[in-house]
Amino acid sequence: MSPDSQPTAASPEARESRRFGRRALLTGGAAGAGLGAALGFGAALGIPGLRDTPTARAVEFGGESLPCHGVHQAGITTPPTAHQRYVAYTLRPETDRDALTRMFRILTGDIEGLTSGVAPLADSEPELAARPARLTITIGVGQALVERVDPELRPKWLAPLPKFSRDRFSGSYDGGDLLVLLQADDPLPLAHAARMLDRDLRSFATHSWTQQGFRQAREAEADGTTMRNLMGQVDGTINPRPKDEDFADLVWLTGSGTASDGNPGWLAGGSALVFRRIRMELDTWDQIDRPGREQTIGRTLSDGAPLTGGSEHTPVDYEATNEFGLPVVPAYAHIRRARSEDLGERIFRRAVNYDDGGESGLLFACYQRDPLSQYVPIQERLDELDLLNEWVTHTGSAVFAILPGFTPERGLGATLLT
Amino acid sequence: MSPDSQPTAASPEARESRRFGRRALLTGGAAGAGLGAALGFGAALGIPGLRDTPTARAVEFGGESLPCHGVHQAGITTPPTAHQRYVAYTLRPETDRDALTRMFRILTGDIEGLTSGVAPLADSEPELAARPARLTITIGVGQALVERVDPELRPKWLAPLPKFSRDRFSGSYDGGDLLVLLQADDPLPLAHAARMLDRDLRSFATHSWTQQGFRQAREAEADGTTMRNLMGQVDGTINPRPKDEDFADLVWLTGSGTASDGNPGWLAGGSALVFRRIRMELDTWDQIDRPGREQTIGRTLSDGAPLTGGSEHTPVDYEATNEFGLPVVPAYAHIRRARSEDLGERIFRRAVNYDDGGESGLLFACYQRDPLSQYVPIQERLDELDLLNEWVTHTGSAVFAILPGFTPERGLGATLLT
Ligand code: HEM
Ligand code: HEM
Repeated sequence: MSPDSQPTAASPEARESRRFGRRALLTGGAAGAGLGAALGFGAALGIPGLRDTPTARAVEFGGESLPCHGVHQAGITTPPTAHQRYVAYTLRPETDRDALTRMFRILTGDIEGLTSGVAPLADSEPELAARPARLTITIGVGQALVERVDPELRPKWLAPLPKFSRDRFSGSYDGGDLLVLLQADDPLPLAHAARMLDRDLRSFATHSWTQQGFRQAREAEADGTTMRNLMGQVDGTINPRPKDEDFADLVWLTGSGTASDGNPGWLAGGSALVFRRIRMELDTWDQIDRPGREQTIGRTLSDGAPLTGGSEHTPVDYEATNEFGLPVVPAYAHIRRARSEDLGERIFRRAVNYDDGGESGLLFACYQRDPLSQYVPIQERLDELDLLNEWVTHTGSAVFAILPGFTPERGLGATLLT
Repeated sequence: MSPDSQPTAASPEARESRRFGRRALLTGGAAGAGLGAALGFGAALGIPGLRDTPTARAVEFGGESLPCHGVHQAGITTPPTAHQRYVAYTLRPETDRDALTRMFRILTGDIEGLTSGVAPLADSEPELAARPARLTITIGVGQALVERVDPELRPKWLAPLPKFSRDRFSGSYDGGDLLVLLQADDPLPLAHAARMLDRDLRSFATHSWTQQGFRQAREAEADGTTMRNLMGQVDGTINPRPKDEDFADLVWLTGSGTASDGNPGWLAGGSALVFRRIRMELDTWDQIDRPGREQTIGRTLSDGAPLTGGSEHTPVDYEATNEFGLPVVPAYAHIRRARSEDLGERIFRRAVNYDDGGESGLLFACYQRDPLSQYVPIQERLDELDLLNEWVTHTGSAVFAILPGFTPERGLGATLLT
């Protein structure tokens, strides 16, 4: 299975994927470490009759692993996990092409090991790696890294985004030459994997910034629930789905073009990531009454249904007016401003919450073929007019080229460096 | 049930408690919000026959709530959760006795609401509160708060700890007049509750420091596993258990004494918390071979068994020598230095991991009647000689008086302020 075929948790197919994950647990050698603990679980829960049946293992997810090999890297269309960490690095001046080749070789091996629950050779705490809990590690490269290899290879969109009028960057969460994005349902293997890769990278790069994010804990709620952000909104309803016919056209690069049109050969199977750290002003948000907050988005807070009726996945009626003849979804509601009439302008969002104690908000992330023609026009509309703007401020921004997927034969970065 | 009777997760009784939690879910009005989602869970998991049986709810823990009322506050002997947050505040100069009374009244009501899944009146995002996932909120008071009420009421141990030779405080995680300790299995309700209480407290106090911690995710592994810290060690094996005969004598204040002997009447049912933020030097730790790392503690890394044999809970043979006549557990091994021959010198540890991206370690916390006669002698021995010292540095410290438990009739802080 390539990560390609993996659905998002918000979709009904998430369950199927979860079942696959479990099947991997039962058959995969790497995940074997989890079996012992899993076997006794039905008994531990006190569920009669569940002791040794395979289904009893379903609730024990620590040993679940997701395949890291495929046409695309894992972590983009794989089911969203409870914990995420973005770690950005700056290359050392002496990291030349040869060093990069070595660096990607080391990364490849350690990602294979860590995500499967088999600790890398140099791992001195293999116990912390044994239960990956759906750990994925996704590698992106920034402008400077590609230019160090060959300036001609840089896709036109791999550069800082144009500055928007409402951007207020702190300087602490911007850019980076290399991105390591870790995702898992358990913070323990995630923290351990982050440290292992940090150790790998130390001689090639220095740490630039780290940002942790989260969504609801795994198993805390039945599957298939769209996540809630810290404003209390159901967030992620309208989003291209990996099984959609046009998903690949929106998200995956084909490498059939050139650097100057943004689709160079070395990126076939890769994607473009836009990361925005967006602070929420929750104190003033709280002062708005509930109808006011719902109109800001155009959806209800209780279940994310459009203000024009139905349930979460009912299409929005943008023409509907109220008794005064005013649009039910206000003209400047977030969803009206964010939606694209141009089907090619869509993005694949994958946001999570952050809360650094005192400051909190959204780690907005979206994947696409070309940020300049997909993300930017949407953000331009929002930047110009969006009821939500009063309570959100973009405090960090980065663009990375997500490397193509890798295989045991052809490691990470191979297409860039050969 | 008072939190008193709740076992730690490491004990076999944890299961029983978990069952109780579930029963509470099924019967308690407050937790009713979780039922709808819970009911469909067997089906969502694809477990045949589990759809509407009560046991199917067992794996859906978002709706579980722990009682906040009792002789003692929840969060000390309640089962350890996946996520923790320590938030310390400094009182505003104008917060007098009357203001403190108001403050505790507000805190009491909001803690009752948030921990049961019923949002406080002023909560504008009730959806984020509806699924508490075993949220507990524990309130501690610092020296300055008690002295503001009446200097005569301050127990002798409620002051900064004596300085140890190896302390290296950064100044960022020290002291505080008021502690809000939040624990839950899901980071989402935890973040939301922290914000609600922060809003409560804003007019009475300013934020001093926040520190988040974690252990393995709920349901990632079968119950009853002792946690692993980021050094990979099984951490928490030897610890008084709430069901032990002498547990109460070690941990819970009785109020039968005076402030000058450390056990004033207003603290009956309370406890003393020592918090230490301890950084780990994992890079150099990694350079030690496995036997060397195991000797540092005196236990194996694989399962925490004593180096003298057996499994995790086998008693350590401190007399055992190896073929060269040397002690199998080295003279300066952490467990040999940390253990107390004096049974009254023991502490109830409840540590978790932290990883702030780039720096990680242990949030050491222990509960006792009197830090001066329980924590301090242990720490003096460790400070003097402990093989572990080469890789750990204490970077923050605080002592709080954990308030007695509260009831619907007698709120938090009542004994201090009346
Ligand atoms: C903190 C900032 C933001 C918050 C709280 C937020 C919240 C939401 C919510 C609640 C929805 C409705 C549910 C859904 O379909 O997911 C939504 C929709 C959407 N948002 Fe945002 N959003 C934020 C920033 C952004 C940004 C920066 C972009 C892109 C530039 C964006 C693009 C979209 C799009 C494309 C939709 C779907 C619109 C549609 O076709 O219905 N959002 N957002
Ligand atoms: C980062 C710092 C520390 C680490 C990594 C650490 C780790 C451990 C480990 C792995 C054990 C053996 C398993 C167990 O019984 O839990 C242990 C035991 C213990 N530790 Fe620590 N510890 C640290 C700091 C402290 C501190 C500051 C104290 C108190 C001052 C302390 C007191 C104890 C006690 C009382 C025991 C049980 C000893 C026995 O009776 O066997 N530890 N610790």
